[in-house]
Amino acid sequence: MPRLLQHRLDPASRLIRLICAEYGVPLDLDDMKPWARDPALLEINPAATGCILIDDGEAPVVGVLGAIHALEERYAPTAIAGLFPATSGQRAEMWRLLEWVLIKFNDEVTRYVIEEKIVKRDKRGATPEPGVLRVAKANLVEHMLYFNWLFATRQWIAGETMTLADFALAAHFSSLDYLGDVTWETSVETRQWYARIKSRPAFRTLLNDRIAGMPAAKGYADLDF
Amino acid sequence: MPRLLQHRLDPASRLIRLICAEYGVPLDLDDMKPWARDPALLEINPAATGCILIDDGEAPVVGVLGAIHALEERYAPTAIAGLFPATSGQRAEMWRLLEWVLIKFNDEVTRYVIEEKIVKRDKRGATPEPGVLRVAKANLVEHMLYFNWLFATRQWIAGETMTLADFALAAHFSSLDYLGDVTWETSVETRQWYARIKSRPAFRTLLNDRIAGMPAAKGYADLDF
Repeated sequence: MPRLLQHRLDPASRLIRLICAEYGVPLDLDDMKPWARDPALLEINPAATGCILIDDGEAPVVGVLGAIHALEERYAPTAIAGLFPATSGQRAEMWRLLEWVLIKFNDEVTRYVIEEKIVKRDKRGATPEPGVLRVAKANLVEHMLYFNWLFATRQWIAGETMTLADFALAAHFSSLDYLGDVTWETSVETRQWYARIKSRPAFRTLLNDRIAGMPAAKGYADLDF
Repeated sequence: MPRLLQHRLDPASRLIRLICAEYGVPLDLDDMKPWARDPALLEINPAATGCILIDDGEAPVVGVLGAIHALEERYAPTAIAGLFPATSGQRAEMWRLLEWVLIKFNDEVTRYVIEEKIVKRDKRGATPEPGVLRVAKANLVEHMLYFNWLFATRQWIAGETMTLADFALAAHFSSLDYLGDVTWETSVETRQWYARIKSRPAFRTLLNDRIAGMPAAKGYADLDF
């Protein structure tokens, strides 16, 4: 059975968990703290990040791009049921938005929140820097405007079928939502999309997560939030 | 003929140019400044970055992940001659290092240099902040140690065959090298690899680049640097 070295709130790892759940691939979870720089981890991944997929008889797959491609190659059902859309133009739109989430959204929103609320606390018991969280919040508002605009014109983020890009964004939102950092009231279109994706059986794997000493924010696991 | 909306020193665009040159795909270059936030560009790419591939009869492909996949699907010769290696394990190593370059290396080195030396100057005639460039330089030293270690044990960055990850790293190095920001003397292994990749016919497309008012640093176009 494949195994994932991960942190519960790492959005990249959450994306991999969603893909596995959607494809019906059982996945063992092995919790770790990437920032602890464990020598055994550094040996496998000198970048010291989580999201490492260990699969029977294969070398470890390090990082989210590698894991996405490995799962698609090894476990995707037919193209029709997979998370990569069928046409070249739709796939390009999927990659555009995947890049948006993995790089831009992470860079401007998620990584600030994870660093301030999780890493700092764990490493030295420090409290989050309010100025940094304010910047992340302001950036999230801008991103939400764009996502609302997209979801006003299409069913899923890259078009009329659900793709990997939906799971990527939902993985980030689920981490932020666990920490109470998403204001759903003002984002009607994105909220409707998130309610839809949250109701999928694959999402249960994330909604059951609990982190010791850090309860999920209200509404995290509710399908009607 | 495909066309690329790009900035000459944008490493993502340079990677796409290398792939096209390697695959023998003629490419029209359309210079632009992503930071100018031209409304026509924002219409195609609200992320306001360069690296947009416009191909006959296809929707524009925005971003480096989309362009990589589109070129691989549309123009790669057989798997043997392509830039994606043949086995699953080798591909995973390629994606790991591609992610390293596109996210980690860019984040810790290249984007600081581009922002300080190109964007700031162009936007408001400002000079680079020495403190920021010092951080980028210190980070580059750390990355170089890792690359030297890799190249001491393997011919190409992801193994014994040249892959997309080599082109990605070479694209970043070529931007930094144009600006005189790579100290080759202290990085023997990486320098040998760069000399090898720089000698490929595909690389000529980059070595002929000239930017108005900003001559290339000494050695930029020399195969013996």
